Amino acid sequence: MSFTFSPGMPISHSGHSKESSRSSTPVLAADRTERLRDKMRRRTESGDHWFSLEFFPPRTASGAVNLVSRFDRMGSGGPLFIDITWHPAGDPGSDKETSSMMIASTAVNYCGLESILHLTCCNQTKEKITGYLSKAKHLGLKNIMALRGDPVGADWEEEEGGFNYATDLVKHIRCEFDDYFDICVAGYPTGHPEADSYDEDLRHLKEKVDAGADFIITQLFFRADTFLKFVRDCRAIGITCPILPGIFPIQGYQSLRQLVKLSKLEVPEEIMRVIEPIKDNDAAIRNYGIEQTVGMCRVLLESGNVPGLHFYTLNREVATMEVLRQLGLWIEDPRRPLPWAVSAHPKRKVEDVRPIFWASRPKSYIYRTQDWDDFPNGRWGNSSSPAFGELNDYYLFYLKSKSSKDALLKMWGEELTSEQSVYEVFTSYIKAQPNCAGHKVMCLPWNDEPLAPETNLMMDELDKVNRRGVLTINSQPTINGKPSDDPIVGWGPPGGYVFQKAYLEFFTSSENVTVLLKVLKKYEPRVNYHIVNVHGQNTTNAHDMQPNAVTWGIFPGREIVQPTVVDPVSFMYWKDEAFALWIEQWAELYDDESPSRMIIKYIHDNYFLVNLVDNDFPLDNCLWQVIDDMFELLDNPPEEQPTEQPVEQPAEESPVEDQSPK
Amino acid sequence: MSFTFSPGMPISHSGHSKESSRSSTPVLAADRTERLRDKMRRRTESGDHWFSLEFFPPRTASGAVNLVSRFDRMGSGGPLFIDITWHPAGDPGSDKETSSMMIASTAVNYCGLESILHLTCCNQTKEKITGYLSKAKHLGLKNIMALRGDPVGADWEEEEGGFNYATDLVKHIRCEFDDYFDICVAGYPTGHPEADSYDEDLRHLKEKVDAGADFIITQLFFRADTFLKFVRDCRAIGITCPILPGIFPIQGYQSLRQLVKLSKLEVPEEIMRVIEPIKDNDAAIRNYGIEQTVGMCRVLLESGNVPGLHFYTLNREVATMEVLRQLGLWIEDPRRPLPWAVSAHPKRKVEDVRPIFWASRPKSYIYRTQDWDDFPNGRWGNSSSPAFGELNDYYLFYLKSKSSKDALLKMWGEELTSEQSVYEVFTSYIKAQPNCAGHKVMCLPWNDEPLAPETNLMMDELDKVNRRGVLTINSQPTINGKPSDDPIVGWGPPGGYVFQKAYLEFFTSSENVTVLLKVLKKYEPRVNYHIVNVHGQNTTNAHDMQPNAVTWGIFPGREIVQPTVVDPVSFMYWKDEAFALWIEQWAELYDDESPSRMIIKYIHDNYFLVNLVDNDFPLDNCLWQVIDDMFELLDNPPEEQPTEQPVEQPAEESPVEDQSPK
Repeated sequence: MSFTFSPGMPISHSGHSKESSRSSTPVLAADRTERLRDKMRRRTESGDHWFSLEFFPPRTASGAVNLVSRFDRMGSGGPLFIDITWHPAGDPGSDKETSSMMIASTAVNYCGLESILHLTCCNQTKEKITGYLSKAKHLGLKNIMALRGDPVGADWEEEEGGFNYATDLVKHIRCEFDDYFDICVAGYPTGHPEADSYDEDLRHLKEKVDAGADFIITQLFFRADTFLKFVRDCRAIGITCPILPGIFPIQGYQSLRQLVKLSKLEVPEEIMRVIEPIKDNDAAIRNYGIEQTVGMCRVLLESGNVPGLHFYTLNREVATMEVLRQLGLWIEDPRRPLPWAVSAHPKRKVEDVRPIFWASRPKSYIYRTQDWDDFPNGRWGNSSSPAFGELNDYYLFYLKSKSSKDALLKMWGEELTSEQSVYEVFTSYIKAQPNCAGHKVMCLPWNDEPLAPETNLMMDELDKVNRRGVLTINSQPTINGKPSDDPIVGWGPPGGYVFQKAYLEFFTSSENVTVLLKVLKKYEPRVNYHIVNVHGQNTTNAHDMQPNAVTWGIFPGREIVQPTVVDPVSFMYWKDEAFALWIEQWAELYDDESPSRMIIKYIHDNYFLVNLVDNDFPLDNCLWQVIDDMFELLDNPPEEQPTEQPVEQPAEESPVEDQSPK
Repeated sequence: MSFTFSPGMPISHSGHSKESSRSSTPVLAADRTERLRDKMRRRTESGDHWFSLEFFPPRTASGAVNLVSRFDRMGSGGPLFIDITWHPAGDPGSDKETSSMMIASTAVNYCGLESILHLTCCNQTKEKITGYLSKAKHLGLKNIMALRGDPVGADWEEEEGGFNYATDLVKHIRCEFDDYFDICVAGYPTGHPEADSYDEDLRHLKEKVDAGADFIITQLFFRADTFLKFVRDCRAIGITCPILPGIFPIQGYQSLRQLVKLSKLEVPEEIMRVIEPIKDNDAAIRNYGIEQTVGMCRVLLESGNVPGLHFYTLNREVATMEVLRQLGLWIEDPRRPLPWAVSAHPKRKVEDVRPIFWASRPKSYIYRTQDWDDFPNGRWGNSSSPAFGELNDYYLFYLKSKSSKDALLKMWGEELTSEQSVYEVFTSYIKAQPNCAGHKVMCLPWNDEPLAPETNLMMDELDKVNRRGVLTINSQPTINGKPSDDPIVGWGPPGGYVFQKAYLEFFTSSENVTVLLKVLKKYEPRVNYHIVNVHGQNTTNAHDMQPNAVTWGIFPGREIVQPTVVDPVSFMYWKDEAFALWIEQWAELYDDESPSRMIIKYIHDNYFLVNLVDNDFPLDNCLWQVIDDMFELLDNPPEEQPTEQPVEQPAEESPVEDQSPK
């Protein structure tokens, strides 16, 4: 799965033997390599309460896109794990973007969340189940919630040698996959509705644990005492593993009724008394649900028998986040181990260097490197860079824009009249201000999110240069030793210092590039540049095999971490992706042959992608001065002999007048 | 070749496949990986004149020790290479410390000098020659000067199929070793004395080059014209490779006469006229030699046909260095690619990280890691550190002290009366001042050279703590971003910045250590420490597998270089070496059972080796404050309950009174 980008440059991913890694990831290695049950034990032993979140797979593709952004947002609060339910009726093990398997895989690989995939076994063959488990393992999933599932139809009977109980599934997983998976099983604080008695159900639970389950998550309940008694009863019969309470914040009257019906639970009198009178007031019910849940959780946590709380989110975020905030469990700004979001795939646990180019498209980077056997750690290394997978599917759901075509047209212009109108889209995005049609530009093809606070440090400069057609898509300021816990630019363990070289990446016209190259001569060797057009015509003053580390951190008792590099080889892969986004995401919003489409197409065909690094990080960022010098030279070109100016005649090539119909 | 240091901790050098190295050395890679002929071409093309130096193997072991220090000194002037002559009568291919092979190997491996080993072939079997070449290759030698050598006896006759001419040797090398070696051959500007004619000799030279030689070094000559004509004649018959003039600065009357006799050259009239009258005045002859050589070299260099000069040093340094200085070829402070001296062994060309512990004993480090198949580069990596070879031979000649036993006794004390007298030796060394007997202390067992200028930045502090028994053997100050061309602390390519965490390593008594550990609690997590005694009893607050980078550099267009680490695993190997030096180098100067010996033995048995790292490099070094706090607490112990002070009673264990006879 490799492609060559320009004149037949052969690039292949070098094979790595398992023995090759003397080095381990220097940052938070434990957190990235520990398995879930060990993280749980460590947190429990340190008395550090955690939370986890349950989601179900969405029904539609756009629901999947939204759920993945919810993962990103809720992931930022620091859940110990999330879990994805298994919908036997919804082709749960398929490659569809709405399948349980794909949603869990996306959470792990692209959102970096420790995840548990539910799996139900009833009415399934062993081969089918083994197939699901193998696929889960291959996708990087490490945790399974082993469930029986609801028998289909009333005439269900036990099968000889089949999966009749969750215990059978637990045994099967341990038998076929040894200790690879962490296994969770369900507990019923009031007894399973089908069990003969509460005590018999407890014995079943003990069997599941004895068969190899690592911990228990309970069904929902409405009173703290219900759970605490259940835990006591479990302990009394020798169940020693962690037991996590399943918390259900009441979010609405209908959802409560439905859930209660499914789970065959009774809602306590004292709750119904409050809810019935306000059943048509969603906000009031939700507020009550939050208050009730917070109160119950406080009792649970204070009991000393509850190390963490498991939330049934119903795929919503407001109520659960509010409960977590009130409990002080929501960590607004959890420490970032690295400046970019790490993936939770076990293969990637040592990964700690990436090219800067995909900074705003980490999911694309992860997708394109998913077939690597080994990931750079410690350093990016040299020329023998691995091949990047082709990104031929711009419709991978986790790469899709969250905005509709209509919304994009409003942001990026229903009708473009010149390159200048493109410049204005960039400017509106940077300033987070409405465009001329009055719509806020919340994203660009290269940036699916509003600008980061860090980038806003440079807003005035970015605004100024975009107005004049230096169309910035990535940048970072100089940082000369800020504490690693700095709220805006910090990352890594405490007590360290983080650094950056200033970086600026933009599209600009060939006329600008001609002048820029003259200006850059003055900044040798302080500024490194790569300048390339869509055809791969490439100008650089950087070593063709040397990556340039542009973000690094120095920490107590560790080797240096350099998580972001500008590297010449992967830039050529990025170039293809960055140019393609003009067409795939922007030009295709417009009709064929429309002026708007022609303008974007012109930019795609004629502009250059430029990146600049200011190596002199202890000094003020000089990259703005470079651009200013370019404008200055454009505005006041030196008088030259006619024979010497074939390239610098901007008027002759003015593209919009020539090629875009008016 | 691995040893275990304490409770059976298994450490083995992990096998590395050739495929494992994605990374290359980030600093001056070209300089370390280029072969000699490519370096030569690059320098020639850039018009950058070079010089090279010829040495012959010494006759005695102490001569070898002196020659190796001469290599270190003359290496600092930046020769492109050195070459070592082959003495057929002196067992030249043996493992003796005076053999040509061992001297060349030492120059390459331990002094980091690009070296050419001479090899003569006449009267040798092919097997013998192949054996020499294989050994040379194994030792890391990459360049051979292929010579016929002088036939033994007058009745020498050509052998059918044997080595009759240097051409045969060149062909044999190319046949058996393909392109592995760079090959140099000799040229005779006035014709070989045995050749039938000058022209025939030129044809022989052409044959040697055609057989595969890469460049030519000429026999000595006395007039620039002689050489320039020779080059013209060579070019005329199609010899296109580099031709280096062999320069012989006249250094004395006798050596001139002897050389002239051997080489069958005539000394020109105009030189003899000057020399004869002053033949008994060595200084006058040497000054004349310098003047004459400088004049001739200027003519050569200005001719444009001479890219570099090759000097016959006669194993002396003054005259050659003076000539080079006057010519401006001697680079007093050549840029250091890394803060430590690199080895020129091809296996080590990617090496760019080392533990700090061997900073003053790099030859020992190189020796102990000579069997590694692979060297850390980019980072030191984690636990799976390679095993260190045993240093059971403290008499490896390149590790020997340059001082005699007598000189050492004068420096370190003919008679020690207490631990205090040991402290005074350390203090005298640090201050570079005479000891109480009036002798300057120029070295210590752990430091064969006077202190580096960098260390002198800390002289006052070092003096103060050594007086009180904190016996420092290694230290570095904090550096927070000094330019890479800083004359004292700079290293690496231009335009970069270098950094250090403060480091301090010392021996001190167990009483001090007890108090130090209390003090260190106040400095958590800012200060990392390792504290170990000779038995391996070890206390640390550092991660047991994480190295701490203590020297690093940030350079334009490169990844970060972190050439020095404090690493817990190799510290345990260093500990054995550091403790052993007390006995091997110091105690054994004294008679068995003598008080002096007992005092050193007591320190060896009871003191701890401590290292401290101040992680907070942007702040002032706090390590002196740590030691001050320790002294403060020793001087003013808090009043404690008798039940609580079993460990901190210094008086009870006062060692000198108890164990050392007075």
